[in-house]
Amino acid sequence: MRTLKLVIQYDGTDYVGWQRQPEGVSIQGLLEDGLAPFEGAPVTVHGAGRTDAGVHALAQVASVTMTAAHETNAIQRGLNAVLPLDVRVIEVIEPPAGFHARFSARAKVYEYRIVNASFVSAFQHRYVWHVPGRLDSGRMRDASAVLVGTHDFAAFQGTGTTVHSTVRTIHRLDWRNGSRFDQPLVLEIEGDGFLRHMIRNIAGTLVEVGCGRFPIESVAGILASRDRMQAGPTAPPTGLFLAAVKY
Amino acid sequence: MRTLKLVIQYDGTDYVGWQRQPEGVSIQGLLEDGLAPFEGAPVTVHGAGRTDAGVHALAQVASVTMTAAHETNAIQRGLNAVLPLDVRVIEVIEPPAGFHARFSARAKVYEYRIVNASFVSAFQHRYVWHVPGRLDSGRMRDASAVLVGTHDFAAFQGTGTTVHSTVRTIHRLDWRNGSRFDQPLVLEIEGDGFLRHMIRNIAGTLVEVGCGRFPIESVAGILASRDRMQAGPTAPPTGLFLAAVKY
Repeated sequence: MRTLKLVIQYDGTDYVGWQRQPEGVSIQGLLEDGLAPFEGAPVTVHGAGRTDAGVHALAQVASVTMTAAHETNAIQRGLNAVLPLDVRVIEVIEPPAGFHARFSARAKVYEYRIVNASFVSAFQHRYVWHVPGRLDSGRMRDASAVLVGTHDFAAFQGTGTTVHSTVRTIHRLDWRNGSRFDQPLVLEIEGDGFLRHMIRNIAGTLVEVGCGRFPIESVAGILASRDRMQAGPTAPPTGLFLAAVKY
Repeated sequence: MRTLKLVIQYDGTDYVGWQRQPEGVSIQGLLEDGLAPFEGAPVTVHGAGRTDAGVHALAQVASVTMTAAHETNAIQRGLNAVLPLDVRVIEVIEPPAGFHARFSARAKVYEYRIVNASFVSAFQHRYVWHVPGRLDSGRMRDASAVLVGTHDFAAFQGTGTTVHSTVRTIHRLDWRNGSRFDQPLVLEIEGDGFLRHMIRNIAGTLVEVGCGRFPIESVAGILASRDRMQAGPTAPPTGLFLAAVKY
């Protein structure tokens, strides 16, 4: 038996998300189905982050334990030959012993992309949230500073989820400016882990600040409230990318 | 009556091309259908370049003569509200008197994008030609130099077309390097006009040189032959973009 580390890129538009579901096509399902012929048996692929339906990945990481002895290059080529063109395996390597895509992850980096213009480029509409009304990115930047650090992020957790703890650490939160129709405003967040819908709820809340509906200072209060009802709406999945996983 | 100049961006993947066809959805047809309600009557939209099925545009230019007196901003907004998200009107202005998108055009710039890697990014597969075998971009660059200038490009004209003259002038031919799976090699060609399939046939021929099947010197002979059978295959439409029209 050996463990493989796979790095995968996908356009999530047409998928039900990372995780296998009773209905619809998942990224996990595609990879498991693509790997099974190498193994001659079903395999289980573990992903670093469970991206939701419509969410994209620049570099999702997965691990799988198999007996198949094929070279890593052959596995990468074989998967890319059978996977749809909007799901690509960009790397297959043999990681250090004990590696697990999810449990070994030290940090994850997500990007949330917003186009604040009257329209969105024909080539980007699948990959951004279109917010046509005027956004003050300075306000959004100022409001987001209080999120950095270790906090209870319960206010930003999607409803209907139960986890052991809602405390997470955001190591870094950066903004890259963009104001034209073909240049998104990008919120980049690195943290040790994220609750369900956490980044989309943060993005939705910061857009409320950016358009003036919430005061800049409100985010500290929302965070302290631990109450999902205080935060803004959930931003759409189109703008969200799992950008990197650090080990 | 007044003439309007429209600048349009589109992902050509799902369309039959610029020109209205008996079957399928064309960019011209979408624009004409979108403008008719402003005019209260059918209108005719003239495009600068008739892009083929599957070919994209970063900035196609069109002109239309209408009696409707709506502000240009209202027409842009109205069109973008009804057009599919992969077709965007990025500008509507009132051009100088006598303007015609096709007849006033001084030069057009096309880009042809090639990914020379074992696989293509999940986000780019609609927008490139995937050439997995090793390409020598230096050979392609050297071979392409003879195409610059005024020549009879009959050897690069798609079959089944009849035009008055097959002489065209290529003002400029540049290469932008790219060798990774997510960074295409880009051939940029500016000229006074192009024959049907001319850029795709040039790209297909240069790829034959790049992979070593044609000698570098062969391109001069192919050009001189005026014989389509001498040139390489037609490169796929996915990699082609109408990048700009100059007036």
